[in-house]
Amino acid sequence: MIEKLGFVLELVGIASAAVSGTMVAIEKKCDAFGVVFLAFITALGGGALRDTMIGYLPPRLFTSYAYILTATIFSLTVFLIALRHHESYHANKEKLDHINNWFDAVGLASFTVAGVDLTIAAVGMEAPLTPILLGLVTGVGGGVLRDVLTGTMPRLLYKRIYALASLAGAVLYYMLLRLGMPGVLGAVLCMALIVALRFFATKYHWNMPHAEP
Amino acid sequence: MIEKLGFVLELVGIASAAVSGTMVAIEKKCDAFGVVFLAFITALGGGALRDTMIGYLPPRLFTSYAYILTATIFSLTVFLIALRHHESYHANKEKLDHINNWFDAVGLASFTVAGVDLTIAAVGMEAPLTPILLGLVTGVGGGVLRDVLTGTMPRLLYKRIYALASLAGAVLYYMLLRLGMPGVLGAVLCMALIVALRFFATKYHWNMPHAEP
Amino acid sequence: MIEKLGFVLELVGIASAAVSGTMVAIEKKCDAFGVVFLAFITALGGGALRDTMIGYLPPRLFTSYAYILTATIFSLTVFLIALRHHESYHANKEKLDHINNWFDAVGLASFTVAGVDLTIAAVGMEAPLTPILLGLVTGVGGGVLRDVLTGTMPRLLYKRIYALASLAGAVLYYMLLRLGMPGVLGAVLCMALIVALRFFATKYHWNMPHAEP
Repeated sequence: MIEKLGFVLELVGIASAAVSGTMVAIEKKCDAFGVVFLAFITALGGGALRDTMIGYLPPRLFTSYAYILTATIFSLTVFLIALRHHESYHANKEKLDHINNWFDAVGLASFTVAGVDLTIAAVGMEAPLTPILLGLVTGVGGGVLRDVLTGTMPRLLYKRIYALASLAGAVLYYMLLRLGMPGVLGAVLCMALIVALRFFATKYHWNMPHAEP
Repeated sequence: MIEKLGFVLELVGIASAAVSGTMVAIEKKCDAFGVVFLAFITALGGGALRDTMIGYLPPRLFTSYAYILTATIFSLTVFLIALRHHESYHANKEKLDHINNWFDAVGLASFTVAGVDLTIAAVGMEAPLTPILLGLVTGVGGGVLRDVLTGTMPRLLYKRIYALASLAGAVLYYMLLRLGMPGVLGAVLCMALIVALRFFATKYHWNMPHAEP
Repeated sequence: MIEKLGFVLELVGIASAAVSGTMVAIEKKCDAFGVVFLAFITALGGGALRDTMIGYLPPRLFTSYAYILTATIFSLTVFLIALRHHESYHANKEKLDHINNWFDAVGLASFTVAGVDLTIAAVGMEAPLTPILLGLVTGVGGGVLRDVLTGTMPRLLYKRIYALASLAGAVLYYMLLRLGMPGVLGAVLCMALIVALRFFATKYHWNMPHAEP
């Protein structure tokens, strides 16, 4: 049951992250293959890291057509839109960043929940540390790999409540499950928390303290 | 049988990638250890990723002297040539790039076939997705790690038919094996396809479409 | 026994690397979460790589509170000092680099020994290649990941006897263990060698040969 919920939410995360990864790749002037490749890394990298860490080998992306097809279809759709309407696509940078931000937040939220679910399916839910940390890894992993591959310092290192939102969501979700709440309800609450944290952090420019003045 | 073929081709890939990785490291002004280290990453990184993904742990590079010695010998030979003849070595940049390109293509081709072979040896050949994707990972993995470590955006993201050549070769090779063709013959055809794709892509500046005008 | 020694030394390495990673993160203007995240990567990344390579899954960092707490406490302490005394903290750049260098050397030394120990605990000590190479991976892995994430070319590629010190220490330690020396004594000798190599390499600007004039 928890594995099925994790699977569905991972597909939601893959679709969102494929859109967001494609938009970054287009901005970085990747070619068609590079766009799909970067979308794959963004969409499938976090789950691959988690599967490796829990010893689920080969990771799902290497055995699941659902994963590969979801990432490919969503990435190619965005790429074709950008290719056909490239003037209007590139005309409105700010709006694009805004859209990207939403897909990114939904991806972060679904991946976090999916990561907790699939880790619990593999190692049980006795020890809180493992599913919470691997929820975080699933949530932020793909974005970090995308940033590393495009030579950007990962945004989670310096900007707004990003990884912290994922971590808070993972902790909340794990606690709700332990309290006996049904997985679907807990997942909705946890995803709402993560998306809300990201939304308010962006809107009100919340930042964590920096040591440099 | 398929594992033995994979082993031999992986050694060919390691030798080629060690040469190519060493030439990049020299250009990046690494010291002697850095050169060998970067050659190791380039030559052994793709196979280590694949072995990790199929749960062949510890990966072969940590247990096989053949892997380590091949990488070390080919890397040190190139480094010593560059050290002794550094004026003539650095005089002819274009020719060096050309040589590097060939080693890179041979490495890509042998690693792709080796990746398919060693994955089939581990998980069987029922499901096409796993050996094909891990052929690609083995083919491009070391180069991506080398690029990431030297702060270069991985070339496969923006330049000419590179990962696509590896993917096409992996698909062809898997299909030939399924059709019952002997491994060695299939490997020769697949490697010829990959090297030819790389050669023509470089010669005629084939590129995939970009979304930016 | 060897596993217990490895555990204790890994904690020493985690504490040292957390301090060093935090200092780098502050310099890179990360926020509070980014600082702790980068300290985690530096302090826990090498061990996570090693555990993955030996098939110890999930890696210790995902199951051990001792690992997580050590990294968090040492990182937050340094961050709070830098936050409270930020004028005097940033006034003396050279002294900070000097302190960082020492923590880095102690981390390199303890991680190398811990890596050899924990690999032997997992795969035995028959084959020298595996524990020696995984001692090196444990020693340098966290620093390489930290450098990659902050967009710096890993220092081990071009600067002074760094990875070589770790490798020499791992070889010495393995040999002493094979000769029957008690682990603790061997560990002290090996760590002294690594720290001394780093100290003299920094003091006398030892460098390996470069191929560029």
